[in-house]
Amino acid sequence: MARIILVLEYNGSRYCGWQSQPENCSIQDTLETALSKIAHEEIRIITAGRTDAGVHALYQVVHFDTFVQRPINAWVRGVNAFLPDDIAVLWASEVSDRFHARYSALERRYLYFLLNQSVRPGVNHKKVGWFHQPLQLDIMQCAANILIGEHDFSSFRAAACQAKSPIRTITQLKIVRHGNLLIFDLRANAFLQHMVRNIIGCLVYIGKGKYPSEWMLELLEGRNRAYAAPTFSAAGLYLAGVKYDSSWCMPELSRIPIIPNMFLYN
Amino acid sequence: MARIILVLEYNGSRYCGWQSQPENCSIQDTLETALSKIAHEEIRIITAGRTDAGVHALYQVVHFDTFVQRPINAWVRGVNAFLPDDIAVLWASEVSDRFHARYSALERRYLYFLLNQSVRPGVNHKKVGWFHQPLQLDIMQCAANILIGEHDFSSFRAAACQAKSPIRTITQLKIVRHGNLLIFDLRANAFLQHMVRNIIGCLVYIGKGKYPSEWMLELLEGRNRAYAAPTFSAAGLYLAGVKYDSSWCMPELSRIPIIPNMFLYN
Repeated sequence: MARIILVLEYNGSRYCGWQSQPENCSIQDTLETALSKIAHEEIRIITAGRTDAGVHALYQVVHFDTFVQRPINAWVRGVNAFLPDDIAVLWASEVSDRFHARYSALERRYLYFLLNQSVRPGVNHKKVGWFHQPLQLDIMQCAANILIGEHDFSSFRAAACQAKSPIRTITQLKIVRHGNLLIFDLRANAFLQHMVRNIIGCLVYIGKGKYPSEWMLELLEGRNRAYAAPTFSAAGLYLAGVKYDSSWCMPELSRIPIIPNMFLYN
Repeated sequence: MARIILVLEYNGSRYCGWQSQPENCSIQDTLETALSKIAHEEIRIITAGRTDAGVHALYQVVHFDTFVQRPINAWVRGVNAFLPDDIAVLWASEVSDRFHARYSALERRYLYFLLNQSVRPGVNHKKVGWFHQPLQLDIMQCAANILIGEHDFSSFRAAACQAKSPIRTITQLKIVRHGNLLIFDLRANAFLQHMVRNIIGCLVYIGKGKYPSEWMLELLEGRNRAYAAPTFSAAGLYLAGVKYDSSWCMPELSRIPIIPNMFLYN
């Protein structure tokens, strides 16, 4: 038996989320169907992180076990030939069965793209979140810093979240502005369900002046989802990376976001 | 009677192009329908540049004449309420009837995003072009430089092109690489039908080593479409700006196309 790792990307707009559903509307269902066609046997995959409906991935990691032998390129280009155009395998490798896409992961990275302008998006519909009022970035960053470190994130956790513990460690929560676009760059050992989108919702409340930055500390210490802002739109959320011990030799992410000024019109 | 200018953006994926069609599948049809609802009269629009099926716009300009009086915001947010989510009016203004969206335009700018990696796009499906073999950027730029200036672009013109003259002046044709993404940035007084996509096709032929850069000069001087490369995919093409005399006070909007996997992976 062989264990195979895949790195993949997808546009989540059309899907009911990562996790398999009876209606076969999920990314997991779609990928398992394509893999099973290549393997001529039923393939079941384990993922590093289950994304919600409408959430995208730039670097998602899965593993699966199979009895068939295929050249490694069959798990990339072969599978891509059976996948719809909005999901693509980027890389594949055989790995020891001590590797586990979920349990071996040390860190997840998410990016959130928030268009901050008075008119709604058009060209980037379903690819960005949107907020129409001005947002004060320095105050949002100040509030974001309160969340860095190991905390009980119960206030930012979906009611349906299945995680055993609400304790997580955020190692980075950086916000940058490029023109009308705010980019939130978050890293943690793992995230609770809706955690990123709930944090974005609260940061937007603070950025528009509804609450001061200290409100974030109250929320965190309150450990009660009822006090926090509504869950923000899934459209702007991208799973951007999963980090493993370097001994697993996963392909490197380019860690620096680039939006060159040349795109600014004038 | 009042003349109104609009600046708009759109994701062209779902549309049969700019120009009105009997099936009402075009961006022009969709926008005229929304405008007519706000005006309670039939509105006909004139555009700065008719984009092909699947081509996007970050900064498209139109004008129209109307007998009704509306607050200027009705032509922005009001119209957006009647438009589908993949088209958005960004800005509107009343203008003298000496302004003409097409004839007053001094320069058009197009961006082409080409994903250059062995595996096909997933998250940016329909938003980028794709070429799987390595491309040599310095040789492509050298060939691109041959096209700068006033030339007869018959070799890069669609058979169906309706322009009276094949003479155009390219003022910029710059290619930059960000990881696996090539970005072509073109400015000209105007473009012929398929001209950008035909140029991209020829540059790709040169970049992959099929022809030397001097081939571009032969093509240009040959003035015969039959010698050139096939028209490249519409998916990566964005109308990124239209320039008018500064006396018209058009907005200098920051247009940032969001191509998330420019952050990623090489």
